[in-house]
Amino acid sequence: MSDPKIIDGNLISKQILDELKVKIAASGGPQPRVTFVRVGEDSASVYYVNKKQKTAKEIGIDSSVQVLPENTSENELLEVIDNLNKDTSVHGILVQSPLPSTISEEAAFNRVHPDKDVDGLNIKNFGRLCQEDVEGFVACTPAGIIELLKRSDIGIDGKHAVVVGRSLLVGKSCALLLMQKGQNGNATVSICHSYTQNLSAITKQADILIVAMGKAEFVTDAMVKPGAVVIDVGINRVIDDSRKRGYRIVGDVDFKNVLPLVSKITPVPGGVGPMTVAILMQNTLKAYKKAHLAD
Amino acid sequence: MSDPKIIDGNLISKQILDELKVKIAASGGPQPRVTFVRVGEDSASVYYVNKKQKTAKEIGIDSSVQVLPENTSENELLEVIDNLNKDTSVHGILVQSPLPSTISEEAAFNRVHPDKDVDGLNIKNFGRLCQEDVEGFVACTPAGIIELLKRSDIGIDGKHAVVVGRSLLVGKSCALLLMQKGQNGNATVSICHSYTQNLSAITKQADILIVAMGKAEFVTDAMVKPGAVVIDVGINRVIDDSRKRGYRIVGDVDFKNVLPLVSKITPVPGGVGPMTVAILMQNTLKAYKKAHLAD
Repeated sequence: MSDPKIIDGNLISKQILDELKVKIAASGGPQPRVTFVRVGEDSASVYYVNKKQKTAKEIGIDSSVQVLPENTSENELLEVIDNLNKDTSVHGILVQSPLPSTISEEAAFNRVHPDKDVDGLNIKNFGRLCQEDVEGFVACTPAGIIELLKRSDIGIDGKHAVVVGRSLLVGKSCALLLMQKGQNGNATVSICHSYTQNLSAITKQADILIVAMGKAEFVTDAMVKPGAVVIDVGINRVIDDSRKRGYRIVGDVDFKNVLPLVSKITPVPGGVGPMTVAILMQNTLKAYKKAHLAD
Repeated sequence: MSDPKIIDGNLISKQILDELKVKIAASGGPQPRVTFVRVGEDSASVYYVNKKQKTAKEIGIDSSVQVLPENTSENELLEVIDNLNKDTSVHGILVQSPLPSTISEEAAFNRVHPDKDVDGLNIKNFGRLCQEDVEGFVACTPAGIIELLKRSDIGIDGKHAVVVGRSLLVGKSCALLLMQKGQNGNATVSICHSYTQNLSAITKQADILIVAMGKAEFVTDAMVKPGAVVIDVGINRVIDDSRKRGYRIVGDVDFKNVLPLVSKITPVPGGVGPMTVAILMQNTLKAYKKAHLAD
C-alpha cells in the first residue's frame, strides 16, 4: 500500500475521525448521540451496527441500538422512528438495512426526521441534494467519495467525471455532487449503466472514473484513459481456494492491470469502504450542531 | 413548419390538451381546480398567469388567482399558501415566479403541499424525481421535453443524451428523467455547463442533444452529430430592426445551419415552450385525481 498512486481510504478515514474527536471534545456540551434501529438478526446488520458503535465510542459519540424482532410490522417500526424523532436527546437516527421484506425501506427512511437523517436517505435530503442545499445530509458513500478526492488533492472542477452505475445511493447521488456549482463540483458528468452502448468509449474519456456496478473486476485497462483517477465502489466476493475462508473480496475494477495506467486509484478493500463510517460520524456531529442551533 | 424534421410543439401540446379535455369531461365529478398566486404586477407574470387561466378554461379546469401586493412579506405569502394547502376545493397551487426579491422563491415553492405542487418545484418532488417515484410531480419544462420526444417517436432507451445546462429546473431535472429506469429513460446521460472543457467534443456524441444554456444561437452545426435529435430550450431576444418590436426570439441553437444535419429539431418559438402549459394542465388533473383517491 505504499504505492503513492493508491488512495488509502483507511488512512484518510482515520484522519477524519481524529479531527472529529478533537471537535467533539472541544464542543463542551452534552455528547452527540446517535441511535441505530435494527430489525431482526441479519448477520451483516449486526456486524455493521457493532462496528459503527465501536467507532462512535472511540471519538466521543454516544450511541444506542433499538433491536426489534424480525416480525416487526412496518407500522411498528414507523412508530419507533416517530418516537426517536421526538426524543430531543437523540441527534441522529440510522435505520440499518436490510430490513425484512415485509417492510418498505423507502417508507422507513422517509420517516426519519430530515434533520436527524445521518444516513442521508430521507426523500427531503435527496431534494436538498438536487437544490445544492448544504444544510442537507448526503448519503455516506457518495459523500465519502467526494471527501476522498478532496483529501487526495484531486481537482474536480472542469474535469470529465464518468460514473458507471445509476443507483440512487451511489451513482445518481455521486453524479449530482460532482456537477454541483463550486470548487468541489463543476465537473462535466456522464452517467453510464447497463443500457449504455459502447461503454468503454465513454469510460475512456474519464478524467475521474467512478465505478459502482457490482460486477467483479469488470473494468479493464482497455476501458481507462492513461492518467485517470479511478474510484472503485464495488465489493464482490470471488471464489479463491487459496484463502482460508474460500473467497476474496474484489472491486469492480481489474486493479492489478489498471494500476499501471492511472494517476490514482482506490483499492478494494481499503478504499471507499472505510470512508462511509467516517462520514456517518461527520453527519452525526452535523445533526448535533443542528439540534444545538435550534435550541 | 411543414418540414417533417421540425417537431411542432404547438401541435403536440394541442393534442395533449384535447386529450385532457376529453378526460376531464368524462370524469363526471366536480371540476379540477388550480389556484395561481401572483405577487405584484410583473408584466411577464401577469401575461403567463392569464395565458394559463385561458388554457385551463378551454379544457374544463376551474382556476382562480390570488393577487398579493408587491410589498407582501414572505410570511404573509407562506400563510396564503398554508390556507390553500388546507382548502380541499383547491387541487393544484402554482406560485408564479418571479417573486419580489424580498421573498425566497425556494421557501415559497417548498411550502406548497407536495401533492398540490402542479409546478413540480417542491423539495419533496425533487426527492421523488431522484427516487423515480411516479407519484411525484415533475417540473413542466423537463416533463414537457420527455413528452415531446415520446410523441415524436424518438426512442430514449440506450441513446446517449447530452444536456447542456445544469439548472435544477431544466438541465438537472432532464438528466434525472433521461437516466431513469424504463423505456422512456435508460439513456446514457452527459451533463455539460459553463465549466465544461471542449464542449463540442461532447455535444458531437449526442444522439439526443438538449440545450438549455441561455445563449442565443450558441450551438452551431460544428457541434452537432449528423442525424441527432436537437431539443432547444433557450428563449433569447436578439435585436432585429426589421421587426416592428425591434427584436426577434431565438433559441440556443443556430437553427438555420443546424437543421440540415439533424433528424429532428424543435424550433424556437413553437417547440418546448408550448409544452409547459400543457404539462401544467396534465399535472393539475393528476393532483385532482390524487385528491379524489384520498377521499
